[in-house]
Amino acid sequence: MTATTPGARDLAHPTRGEIRLEAVLHALSDPMRLRLVCELAATGEELPCSAVELPITKSTTTHHYRVLRESGVVRQCYRGTAKMTSLRRDDLETLFPGLLASVLGAAHRQEERAGDGRAQL
Amino acid sequence: MTATTPGARDLAHPTRGEIRLEAVLHALSDPMRLRLVCELAATGEELPCSAVELPITKSTTTHHYRVLRESGVVRQCYRGTAKMTSLRRDDLETLFPGLLASVLGAAHRQEERAGDGRAQL
Repeated sequence: MTATTPGARDLAHPTRGEIRLEAVLHALSDPMRLRLVCELAATGEELPCSAVELPITKSTTTHHYRVLRESGVVRQCYRGTAKMTSLRRDDLETLFPGLLASVLGAAHRQEERAGDGRAQL
Repeated sequence: MTATTPGARDLAHPTRGEIRLEAVLHALSDPMRLRLVCELAATGEELPCSAVELPITKSTTTHHYRVLRESGVVRQCYRGTAKMTSLRRDDLETLFPGLLASVLGAAHRQEERAGDGRAQL
């Protein structure tokens, strides 16, 4: 286990086989969590929790990361004192082909429409 | 309005522009609601609420249909005394191309895996 989860220090993750579609959709159904996932997808690498600025408290941010982790959307591990987060793209793509891409695309389109709306004001 | 929503009798629906991705994902994140959506997609036409048998009470089923309707996933209308439900495929496809198909595909795959798991017992 140590080899596959270095420094995991008590962070619970579902195995690939334990990931449930309903939990993934629930994790993605919150605006803040969706934003975190979009950022992680855009950078394509692991990020410290502090890398994405959200208009919410630190403890609420931690809660959102936990929901994402426990549903199987992200993987988290400690590197020194930093908790790093990355998308479980391969697991999600294997289980639910095309799902993450369509959600990310939908989020992007929605944001664009919101931008157009503001531009017309 | 009467021409486009015959017999709508107080059933609130978001317009296409009001449909939010987060609400759609939340609506799809419940196993019973996901099953209703899969059935509606499989038949491809409107169904009375009683058409899909679920292991829950009638009032809970009504609640799930309401969540699906208020999020913009389904449209409901009365025909006589029957409340008929249909998927808002066109609206969802226009707003979020490929999203519904990928969720339906993921649900199907998950069900197949569950079936394989049972077969191996």
